[in-house]
Amino acid sequence: MPASTILRIDVPGQGLHEITGSVRELVHELAPSVPAEVARGGLVTLFLRHTSASLLVQENADPSARRDLERWLARLVPEGDPLYTHTTEGPDDMPAHIRAALTATQLSVPLLDGALALGTWQGIFLFEHRHGRAQRQLVVHLG
Amino acid sequence: MPASTILRIDVPGQGLHEITGSVRELVHELAPSVPAEVARGGLVTLFLRHTSASLLVQENADPSARRDLERWLARLVPEGDPLYTHTTEGPDDMPAHIRAALTATQLSVPLLDGALALGTWQGIFLFEHRHGRAQRQLVVHLG
Amino acid sequence: MPASTILRIDVPGQGLHEITGSVRELVHELAPSVPAEVARGGLVTLFLRHTSASLLVQENADPSARRDLERWLARLVPEGDPLYTHTTEGPDDMPAHIRAALTATQLSVPLLDGALALGTWQGIFLFEHRHGRAQRQLVVHLG
Repeated sequence: MPASTILRIDVPGQGLHEITGSVRELVHELAPSVPAEVARGGLVTLFLRHTSASLLVQENADPSARRDLERWLARLVPEGDPLYTHTTEGPDDMPAHIRAALTATQLSVPLLDGALALGTWQGIFLFEHRHGRAQRQLVVHLG
Repeated sequence: MPASTILRIDVPGQGLHEITGSVRELVHELAPSVPAEVARGGLVTLFLRHTSASLLVQENADPSARRDLERWLARLVPEGDPLYTHTTEGPDDMPAHIRAALTATQLSVPLLDGALALGTWQGIFLFEHRHGRAQRQLVVHLG
Repeated sequence: MPASTILRIDVPGQGLHEITGSVRELVHELAPSVPAEVARGGLVTLFLRHTSASLLVQENADPSARRDLERWLARLVPEGDPLYTHTTEGPDDMPAHIRAALTATQLSVPLLDGALALGTWQGIFLFEHRHGRAQRQLVVHLG
């Protein structure tokens, strides 16, 4: 008896946005819908329904690590690369697809005693690769 | 009571090959072997049994986005790089391993009301990194 | 009735370290704690509790392929890049976060007749991105 819900995330713009707290809350809300042993030791799967944003587990302590990662990836996959032919949706669209392809669309995290089994310094992030504000949909599955 | 099968995919050559339809059909075939709530809301896991091909969720609308992604990755990880020492299996072998390492070997997609929870523009692709024709094995697991 | 355990891995230093055998043993130990059909056909999920190491499925046959991959990634994400501002934890820290972001934190492998559904040439590797000896924690989940 697995359970799912869709988390709608309002993203202010490009970059890493921590969603650990929101995921934790949703897992808590889903827990009564699954058998007790799944609520305690099941698997949480996050699936992002987009191809120009992605998921990442990264350090949640020092924001400079996140800033450096964002800047490094922006340099590796810059806007305006003459290689791109897919340019009709704006200069940030094709780099967004490539940056998403290099990171993850899906992430599964086991539960240990009902809590996400993240390490001490780990946070779950939505990595928005386009410039503007956006609402992103994340499927949260507990099974 | 999970269920699995192996999908054999005949790949014509290098590049992104959409497999969303094949995965959908297989999930449909596996559904009667699992409890009704798993067929409706379980987790589909795809596992590719190779290290020179990979899995990717990408835009299935405009083919130019896929072409650009293929060309971008081919430029980042070119054939003939003097760094390579693993060259006995051909010039496309080592770049294939690296390109596979930068994308995904495994992908899980939740089911919502029995359907893959993909976004509107998302497709599932087998990313072949070697030149020749090949038959690739994908484990499709429903649980 | 899923089951989990934490595998503590003593890593001698930077690079790819094969853990296929250890994972296989742990799955064998977890099997009696889950229903027979899960022990035979369930899903094994590995989740690494760190942001400066990662998981990778790669060729386990020729070590030169692994060496080339390590050297290629070290060149793509070098130490001492003037872009980095997050430098207080040592010159290998920021590259480690980026290299981890480009590979995987989590990996799920289905069981077929009780065995990991790996391909003939596939091994599971812990990819350590920092220089020193370390003990890493890997959550192994069977469900």
